[in-house]
Amino acid sequence: MPRPVTLFTGQWADLPLERLAGKAAGWGFDGLELACWGDHFEVDKALADDGYIPEKKRLLEKHGLACHAISSHLVGQCVCDPIDKRHQSILPERLWQDGDPEGVRQRCAREMIDTARAAKRFGVETVNGFTGSSIWSKLYFFPPTSREDIEEGFQDFRKRWLPILDEFKKEGVRFGLEVHPTEIAYDIITAEWALAAVEGHPQFGFNFDPSHFIHQFVDPVRFIEAFPDRIFHAHVKDSRVQLTGSNSILASHLDFGDPRRGWDFVSPGRGDVEWDPIIRALNRIGYQGPLSIEWEDSGMDREFGAREALEMIRGEDFTPSKVAFDAAFSKK
Amino acid sequence: MPRPVTLFTGQWADLPLERLAGKAAGWGFDGLELACWGDHFEVDKALADDGYIPEKKRLLEKHGLACHAISSHLVGQCVCDPIDKRHQSILPERLWQDGDPEGVRQRCAREMIDTARAAKRFGVETVNGFTGSSIWSKLYFFPPTSREDIEEGFQDFRKRWLPILDEFKKEGVRFGLEVHPTEIAYDIITAEWALAAVEGHPQFGFNFDPSHFIHQFVDPVRFIEAFPDRIFHAHVKDSRVQLTGSNSILASHLDFGDPRRGWDFVSPGRGDVEWDPIIRALNRIGYQGPLSIEWEDSGMDREFGAREALEMIRGEDFTPSKVAFDAAFSKK
Amino acid sequence: MPRPVTLFTGQWADLPLERLAGKAAGWGFDGLELACWGDHFEVDKALADDGYIPEKKRLLEKHGLACHAISSHLVGQCVCDPIDKRHQSILPERLWQDGDPEGVRQRCAREMIDTARAAKRFGVETVNGFTGSSIWSKLYFFPPTSREDIEEGFQDFRKRWLPILDEFKKEGVRFGLEVHPTEIAYDIITAEWALAAVEGHPQFGFNFDPSHFIHQFVDPVRFIEAFPDRIFHAHVKDSRVQLTGSNSILASHLDFGDPRRGWDFVSPGRGDVEWDPIIRALNRIGYQGPLSIEWEDSGMDREFGAREALEMIRGEDFTPSKVAFDAAFSKK
Amino acid sequence: MPRPVTLFTGQWADLPLERLAGKAAGWGFDGLELACWGDHFEVDKALADDGYIPEKKRLLEKHGLACHAISSHLVGQCVCDPIDKRHQSILPERLWQDGDPEGVRQRCAREMIDTARAAKRFGVETVNGFTGSSIWSKLYFFPPTSREDIEEGFQDFRKRWLPILDEFKKEGVRFGLEVHPTEIAYDIITAEWALAAVEGHPQFGFNFDPSHFIHQFVDPVRFIEAFPDRIFHAHVKDSRVQLTGSNSILASHLDFGDPRRGWDFVSPGRGDVEWDPIIRALNRIGYQGPLSIEWEDSGMDREFGAREALEMIRGEDFTPSKVAFDAAFSKK
Amino acid sequence: MPRPVTLFTGQWADLPLERLAGKAAGWGFDGLELACWGDHFEVDKALADDGYIPEKKRLLEKHGLACHAISSHLVGQCVCDPIDKRHQSILPERLWQDGDPEGVRQRCAREMIDTARAAKRFGVETVNGFTGSSIWSKLYFFPPTSREDIEEGFQDFRKRWLPILDEFKKEGVRFGLEVHPTEIAYDIITAEWALAAVEGHPQFGFNFDPSHFIHQFVDPVRFIEAFPDRIFHAHVKDSRVQLTGSNSILASHLDFGDPRRGWDFVSPGRGDVEWDPIIRALNRIGYQGPLSIEWEDSGMDREFGAREALEMIRGEDFTPSKVAFDAAFSKK
Amino acid sequence: MPRPVTLFTGQWADLPLERLAGKAAGWGFDGLELACWGDHFEVDKALADDGYIPEKKRLLEKHGLACHAISSHLVGQCVCDPIDKRHQSILPERLWQDGDPEGVRQRCAREMIDTARAAKRFGVETVNGFTGSSIWSKLYFFPPTSREDIEEGFQDFRKRWLPILDEFKKEGVRFGLEVHPTEIAYDIITAEWALAAVEGHPQFGFNFDPSHFIHQFVDPVRFIEAFPDRIFHAHVKDSRVQLTGSNSILASHLDFGDPRRGWDFVSPGRGDVEWDPIIRALNRIGYQGPLSIEWEDSGMDREFGAREALEMIRGEDFTPSKVAFDAAFSKK
Repeated sequence: MPRPVTLFTGQWADLPLERLAGKAAGWGFDGLELACWGDHFEVDKALADDGYIPEKKRLLEKHGLACHAISSHLVGQCVCDPIDKRHQSILPERLWQDGDPEGVRQRCAREMIDTARAAKRFGVETVNGFTGSSIWSKLYFFPPTSREDIEEGFQDFRKRWLPILDEFKKEGVRFGLEVHPTEIAYDIITAEWALAAVEGHPQFGFNFDPSHFIHQFVDPVRFIEAFPDRIFHAHVKDSRVQLTGSNSILASHLDFGDPRRGWDFVSPGRGDVEWDPIIRALNRIGYQGPLSIEWEDSGMDREFGAREALEMIRGEDFTPSKVAFDAAFSKK
Repeated sequence: MPRPVTLFTGQWADLPLERLAGKAAGWGFDGLELACWGDHFEVDKALADDGYIPEKKRLLEKHGLACHAISSHLVGQCVCDPIDKRHQSILPERLWQDGDPEGVRQRCAREMIDTARAAKRFGVETVNGFTGSSIWSKLYFFPPTSREDIEEGFQDFRKRWLPILDEFKKEGVRFGLEVHPTEIAYDIITAEWALAAVEGHPQFGFNFDPSHFIHQFVDPVRFIEAFPDRIFHAHVKDSRVQLTGSNSILASHLDFGDPRRGWDFVSPGRGDVEWDPIIRALNRIGYQGPLSIEWEDSGMDREFGAREALEMIRGEDFTPSKVAFDAAFSKK
Repeated sequence: MPRPVTLFTGQWADLPLERLAGKAAGWGFDGLELACWGDHFEVDKALADDGYIPEKKRLLEKHGLACHAISSHLVGQCVCDPIDKRHQSILPERLWQDGDPEGVRQRCAREMIDTARAAKRFGVETVNGFTGSSIWSKLYFFPPTSREDIEEGFQDFRKRWLPILDEFKKEGVRFGLEVHPTEIAYDIITAEWALAAVEGHPQFGFNFDPSHFIHQFVDPVRFIEAFPDRIFHAHVKDSRVQLTGSNSILASHLDFGDPRRGWDFVSPGRGDVEWDPIIRALNRIGYQGPLSIEWEDSGMDREFGAREALEMIRGEDFTPSKVAFDAAFSKK
Repeated sequence: MPRPVTLFTGQWADLPLERLAGKAAGWGFDGLELACWGDHFEVDKALADDGYIPEKKRLLEKHGLACHAISSHLVGQCVCDPIDKRHQSILPERLWQDGDPEGVRQRCAREMIDTARAAKRFGVETVNGFTGSSIWSKLYFFPPTSREDIEEGFQDFRKRWLPILDEFKKEGVRFGLEVHPTEIAYDIITAEWALAAVEGHPQFGFNFDPSHFIHQFVDPVRFIEAFPDRIFHAHVKDSRVQLTGSNSILASHLDFGDPRRGWDFVSPGRGDVEWDPIIRALNRIGYQGPLSIEWEDSGMDREFGAREALEMIRGEDFTPSKVAFDAAFSKK
Repeated sequence: MPRPVTLFTGQWADLPLERLAGKAAGWGFDGLELACWGDHFEVDKALADDGYIPEKKRLLEKHGLACHAISSHLVGQCVCDPIDKRHQSILPERLWQDGDPEGVRQRCAREMIDTARAAKRFGVETVNGFTGSSIWSKLYFFPPTSREDIEEGFQDFRKRWLPILDEFKKEGVRFGLEVHPTEIAYDIITAEWALAAVEGHPQFGFNFDPSHFIHQFVDPVRFIEAFPDRIFHAHVKDSRVQLTGSNSILASHLDFGDPRRGWDFVSPGRGDVEWDPIIRALNRIGYQGPLSIEWEDSGMDREFGAREALEMIRGEDFTPSKVAFDAAFSKK
Repeated sequence: MPRPVTLFTGQWADLPLERLAGKAAGWGFDGLELACWGDHFEVDKALADDGYIPEKKRLLEKHGLACHAISSHLVGQCVCDPIDKRHQSILPERLWQDGDPEGVRQRCAREMIDTARAAKRFGVETVNGFTGSSIWSKLYFFPPTSREDIEEGFQDFRKRWLPILDEFKKEGVRFGLEVHPTEIAYDIITAEWALAAVEGHPQFGFNFDPSHFIHQFVDPVRFIEAFPDRIFHAHVKDSRVQLTGSNSILASHLDFGDPRRGWDFVSPGRGDVEWDPIIRALNRIGYQGPLSIEWEDSGMDREFGAREALEMIRGEDFTPSKVAFDAAFSKK
């Protein structure tokens, strides 16, 4: 039984959900991972308006689409981040207000709790998203960054997210952090630290996305093996290292899509992610959730790409062996 | 005629200069690149006390050591950086004072000008250092960082450093930025942008240091070829990529010396820097300055390492060909 | 004219041939390579019961399936091996009996001769299989293994197999050794020695299977080129090297399918075998026989895999050029 | 809007165009790139016989095939080459005549001008081809080849081709040199020199063909980026490096198709060319012309191959993104 | 303080110890690791003759040589191995006797206990050696080897070695298994199993030897990191992978020194072992013991090689950093 | 007993032999390989003037230098080449005369015979050199080069060189072709063809020089193994592949020393040649002749380089093992 393949709607928020749902269904997707921006899934309306969620459900049903997870990357980012003007562009006015950093962080923390509540009402058990980080910007250790500085960053994460996770628990909803540079966890080691910081909270796990590991040279399979019971959701997204000796893996403050970058996101199947070993690893840990295509490629028409990616991942996904099987031969 | 080999004193500032000079001379170094911290080269005293510079010169002469450059990385870092508590640890009290960010930046800018004046008095034409950067922390583009955000960072650099460079020009002293993550320029592309930001100011160039390119996968030779007339000074420092599939090239907020890091600094000659092509490139551009060993290796005794590095670079450095020479054979 | 694609039935012996034939035909296979175990092809019955072979033929014809070869790996293995309890699990009772090593070896040698006779009656000219080896276990030379020890092993092979091959000759049937660790020949050099040991006997050749070369780092094309007139049959089977620095190419006594192994078998097309150069090499030597899928992958459902593998190899197989053709252009 | 895919007819000149057109249309090609040999496109008849071109057009229309370019590699080759007996085999009698080298070169130069005229009448704006080179044979510098020798070769190219290009200009037809060993330009550097030699003549550009770069280890994308406004046409042709340590990248004077060669041409999609980055580069420079399959593989049936190559490139070609798109998410 | 460099005498047992000691001292070695064969260290005599050990000590002292470990690979091998005629060649008559396998194994087990006693008398706390293995020959799993078969092998090891280790404990002597194909442990995973089989016995650890990991593609540093408190001794021995596509990593039953082998031992410093990371790892775990050169290279004169290896490892070995040291700079 | 290390004088012909000999002896060379140009070894004078050779001998003896071979690359090149103006620059007037190609070729053929005679008188048994080639310039097969064309080239070589080799035989002197692009043989395959063309003439063999194989990706060890009894002499010369994706392995008609070339010669020890495997291969075939440094590096002072190269090769050269030696240990 292959897994359902869904489309993450975050990069399509310029399209009304109705229109996007029609397209996605037509291409053959099994469902959508709804972004909490655009009109795709609006937390405030979902809680305030009793008709909102039934209406969304009808819309999806009409197109034969399931929803296994909703995603709140933008609000989540603002929970721990030092807030600057860039954050204004990713938040609605009701959360930004006067832009006072601590006020923004606290409003976003409350919004995350509301997101769990809305998910519960919607019948979805997984919320994916970002956490932000007070120490990402101290990545390269100059001026010297001490272990205390780092520890402080993880304590800040703990202080802000433990109460959120406790509320998630009450709702029976899990939070899947998309491990990603700019977040409290961006590789295996920092993911271990983040998990330790929240004392292995049962609602805290990961939205596995290999595209963020490729340019760090982290093997995505190692991530799955490190956290076999914490993979709550999986993204199908791809990236490619394109080093020439003249460019930098740090990407030189160049925009995505600039061919001079040392790495870039590409349509799933055209990058450096090897999907077969990932499928095997997901099979081994018993992951049964969706494979959700997060489509991002600055050089390709997105509708062409979404269809190609869907076909690619359907070809790669496979059922694990049902029989114990080795080099042996059965006699008789 | 091989180039002089000097020792950068920055990582030895716990030793009084007198003691370090004795050691370095004993190991066979030709000179020292004096750090503007510890008692190695104190800008304020050099300008205030007429006996300071003659005394330093005597000290070096006594040991048969030359000085081709002084270095002010710590103060330079504070000119453009968003100032936080980490900066307090790298500044003297007279520059930190109340720690107000803009005040710190301006005091450090003035100190850089004084550094050029002191260098002039000392008879040294090159000051190496850092510049800081208001945008380094926006490296990975989330929340979305616009081209305007980036451009603003380079304008800030221009605004703060052009006046400094003009004062350098009056003194006939050049500033060599050590291209380095956390600085306004950390690779070839950002170095081009930085040079453009200061309109190709004649006093602005680079302290070439290959160790900062290795973990970015930038070929150090390409850097030299990109800026043939801007290599004002050269560091001999080495680093090593040690990726395993489980760790990240971003180094996971781990301390230098932690074996889990994706890369680390190692004693020159034991890392991934290939010195022969660098020597050839320096020969081609006619660089005649010192090869200055900046020794940093968290796993090795520094005195053992400094001697080994000196022997290594003397073996690698060579005189270019004096004759036009190709596959041809002279007949008769 | 592409080659027929067959399915080797050895890993499906838990299914009655009738059922397997129905499935294979449904998936589009052109034929079956029948294993001499399970009920797929029973040598004793084929010789004792005049109705057995006609019945098998009818069964295959009913499904439109051809049979180009039968395979007797298990019995062949016991001809030269030092016999231990593991061999009991791969032999029928009538060959094992009291398990006395020499007795087992001789009964299995006679069974191989019978296999040739049954093949002849069945109208099949190729029997694939293993040979066993008295010296495989002395692979790594400690305690010191002398050339005499090795030579003795090949003499043992000669002594036991020459009489078998002579009987094959009488029947006009060829034996194709699947070159494989644990056999007298497992790479190019040992295959040359084995061929020499039987004095280049015309009935002795190879069942080419690239999956056993990949983890030895032997290029499968070199094997084909080394024995152009001895490739009697070809398996389509794949394997993958999955070294991490922590695991061993020797596979650590771990079971197939354990992700910690340094290499493993995977579904054809998902491993390290490059099929295009193999097809070209088979074209060059004029191999016209079947491409027989030996499907083995501990992590994948075998029915999913068999179909995928069939599609893969049909896409890779191609007809050689019929015209002399080079960079030239024909004029006029 | 994907690009049209055409078939270059040069390697099919043994087939009458009528027959080839039927086949190509049946396989699904959008058009043909007609070779100026065989009966595919005969320059002399096109100019002498008023019915010739309308007849060709009718033939193509009948099969629903377009023609975006015609190609004259054989005649072009003879414009600059030192002429030897090999050239006789690629020229019609009317151009070879007595074979006097300078006479051949001048007749071929005039034929190239006629080719532009015929193209114009045919309604085609691009003529692809070779130039020949008086210095290719001096590639490896022994006996010592001076810069003057090389410069002389480029002057010879300029002297012979500038008049041709001027005539092309009159006709509004462009010449696309297929950069290729044996030509005046065979890599990026020599292409720059060739362009400079004809003073950046607006009719002079390139028929991009990655297969000639692979075995030189030149990245095809770099070629496109070096000449963004000079890519007049593009070939889909593939090659493969097959070095073993025993053979040479120079190919040992072995015929194409000999497996001992260090590299060889293979059917598009089976070689070392990476098509995705090429499509992206062509998208970036706005190339809208055809992707023309030049099919050459000494080991594969050409009809099998042409169909496979067509399917491959259709799968690789894609529309660029219509929206500015980066890691950002649109809010609201 | 660099570590002492010793010479393992096993490959020099054709020389009387007196003569070898003179040579080794002359070349500059700090000590010898005495082999328990030849006249280098005879366990039976050491226990039977009260003058034997004082005489050995005098001999070493005369040449200024220390002894940190003795080694008993040959006898150790016979404790668990299935005994065949090859074992006769490595045992003295008194241990071989009638060659009955179980008798040989038990005599050798008792000899190992005596070896600990002799070591104690000699003032040496480490005995290095092999263990043998009842399951090495079942490495490649055909006929199918079950987990029970493997487990049985480790139980056999446990049964035979636990009593030996208990006697070692009484003497205060440790046993360092040289992890090596043919032994119960040959890589990291099997070493973990072996350690578990003897319940983490405090006297059981490893004689680290990287040459046996190279051809398995195991990173020697990972081994050190896996067993930081079990590295009892370290060999300096090197090997080289020399795969060509025509040969096998399994080495084809070819003799050491045959250039067709897929790997071979070479003089330390000329192989694929990277010594710098090993030295760093040994520094991190606080290993203070000797670096003992086990010299083996079938292509080089051993006296030339021993001297070269000594010089190589002295150049690689270095003292760890005595100060906490990172990218930081000390101010003031 | 390490081999003698000599200096090939070809690249030093601007220095009178007297002066060069003094330098070389001072640097520690054991001998000189004299070039037959400059005043180093003049064939015409050696035959015409009875005092010439004794005088040369005295000169060498005075400096303690041996001579194992003389070299005549320039004259040899003109035996088979199509002669053009470049050849004038490498020939003395007496051989060039009117420059008529066939005349030049025949005069040079006679000069080669005289060279053998002079070598004999000088007491030297090996003459190294080039052969030229009538087909080198047809390397890349366009216009199509037939097998007949190639065969003709080898017949031309045979026709011109067999008579020369017969004269060599009379003198007891051997000819060592330096296998090299531009010659009749430039890799293993063409060397086999050349040897076959002269029917395995006993005086015909090779001056092994790995620097010409590196940029062809030919493994120098394979060359030695292919011709174990034909390695008459060995050059120590190095080259380096420096591909960037923007440049070509064909080197773009760029001068040696231009950093844009895809490969270049560099001082021995600084390139891609691995000397250890070469020394082992020379040991295996029993080569006892000199290691002759042909020093060529357009980026390095040649006197610095010659000394460094001498030290490098002395460190790499080693005596083969005198004892049969494998993984075994001697017991007792």
